[in-house]
Amino acid sequence: MEEKLNKEEKKMSRRGLLWGASKLAVGAAGMTIVSIGGQGMLSKTAAKEIRKWPWGYKKIDPSKAAKIAYEKYYEGACCYGVVNGILVPLQEEIGEPYASLPLEAFRFGHSGVVGWGTTCGTLIGVGIATGFIAGKTGEEILNKVINWYVETPLPTFIPLSPKANIKNTSRSDSPLCHISAGRWLKKEGVSFGSAARAERCARLVANVAAKTVTFLNEWADGKFGMDQESQIKLYSIPAQNNCTDCHGTNIPNLPK
Amino acid sequence: MEEKLNKEEKKMSRRGLLWGASKLAVGAAGMTIVSIGGQGMLSKTAAKEIRKWPWGYKKIDPSKAAKIAYEKYYEGACCYGVVNGILVPLQEEIGEPYASLPLEAFRFGHSGVVGWGTTCGTLIGVGIATGFIAGKTGEEILNKVINWYVETPLPTFIPLSPKANIKNTSRSDSPLCHISAGRWLKKEGVSFGSAARAERCARLVANVAAKTVTFLNEWADGKFGMDQESQIKLYSIPAQNNCTDCHGTNIPNLPK
Repeated sequence: MEEKLNKEEKKMSRRGLLWGASKLAVGAAGMTIVSIGGQGMLSKTAAKEIRKWPWGYKKIDPSKAAKIAYEKYYEGACCYGVVNGILVPLQEEIGEPYASLPLEAFRFGHSGVVGWGTTCGTLIGVGIATGFIAGKTGEEILNKVINWYVETPLPTFIPLSPKANIKNTSRSDSPLCHISAGRWLKKEGVSFGSAARAERCARLVANVAAKTVTFLNEWADGKFGMDQESQIKLYSIPAQNNCTDCHGTNIPNLPK
Repeated sequence: MEEKLNKEEKKMSRRGLLWGASKLAVGAAGMTIVSIGGQGMLSKTAAKEIRKWPWGYKKIDPSKAAKIAYEKYYEGACCYGVVNGILVPLQEEIGEPYASLPLEAFRFGHSGVVGWGTTCGTLIGVGIATGFIAGKTGEEILNKVINWYVETPLPTFIPLSPKANIKNTSRSDSPLCHISAGRWLKKEGVSFGSAARAERCARLVANVAAKTVTFLNEWADGKFGMDQESQIKLYSIPAQNNCTDCHGTNIPNLPK
């Protein structure tokens, strides 16, 4: 262990300290001395040597992820809520490098990316979280989450202490905020600015965080099936499945 | 300086090392000793004490950002390309915490989020990069970048060594990959799988990285105007500006 530690120290010498350092401390299991050079930053190569990406995973109770996500929605909206629901448990259980990641940086996904109604911020949150956790497999998980999102009447999550009451679930048929929220708003008969709509999104955030964690848990158990077809392969162009929404019914060569 | 350093060291004692440590080393400008406790990870509270978010900025030459973004597109697609174009210069010039951020985690935005044709991955890349750099102001910058993206015939970037030749620019009128790429494909008369389309996206990535850096530089100079109206305020729902694309021409109460 000591020899390994010395090797690690040599890698770090003169350049500084970062992410990997706390893991080194675990190895040392006590007190050690690390020299810090004047430069104060790692060269990119040195940083790559001692950090590990993807950062890995430890199974999370989906109901815990949902609870955190729901609460955090009301602090920083949808993308932030999902990122917190998935990564806060890992900050607690794994520590670094998760612990120092500023989750506040991921608020921008709200309302379909700062209000443009494009990708539902929950799904961007899934991409960010699974990107750190699982790399390329994270993309497969995100793909499956999106497919589930567009086909499932949501939200189904019921919080212990709801901040507002809502009546309906709706199937979005689209990963877009504008369409997903718009369909639900029409069914519920409320405006986007209503407390009911915020509650719908908060519950949706909980659902998405829990579903993602369920897939991640399957992956941790070696049971995750990467069986979701690529949208580009299906349509020969990046696309949703709801082509006729915009194109009408006369589209040649649709795969379904 | 020494007193300040001692204060910082106290904050770090017993818990470990992380992000902030390299800045401490800059302060020390020489050799110091940092004790590492056996726990090997920071509690969330301790982490929050010694890290600073947003991480800040140092002005970048837009042509440098464009060049990096263009090259990196061919390694990991659009979202990854933009994140690299903006953050690699900061990894080099500022160091930590940027240096240890695994930019590979942000590939998921490609093809409108793993192929679904939703938000152009370049814009998700802008959101991620500016989120780390500038927090809430990052959202304003992202909003302005999206508005510029939808209104500007792109790509205009010309690489020194193009990997393919392309003839056209096109105005997307939408931040969505499917529409943005689709309009260009129609004009150019090529398929999504073509080398020309990849080249178009690589150049677009360069344009978006350079534009973002231009706004960030204005912000660094205290000259960034946060004058872009919120889409939600404009439309009372998260939305793009191209309503009639999907809704036809009979939409009541449109703001323009």
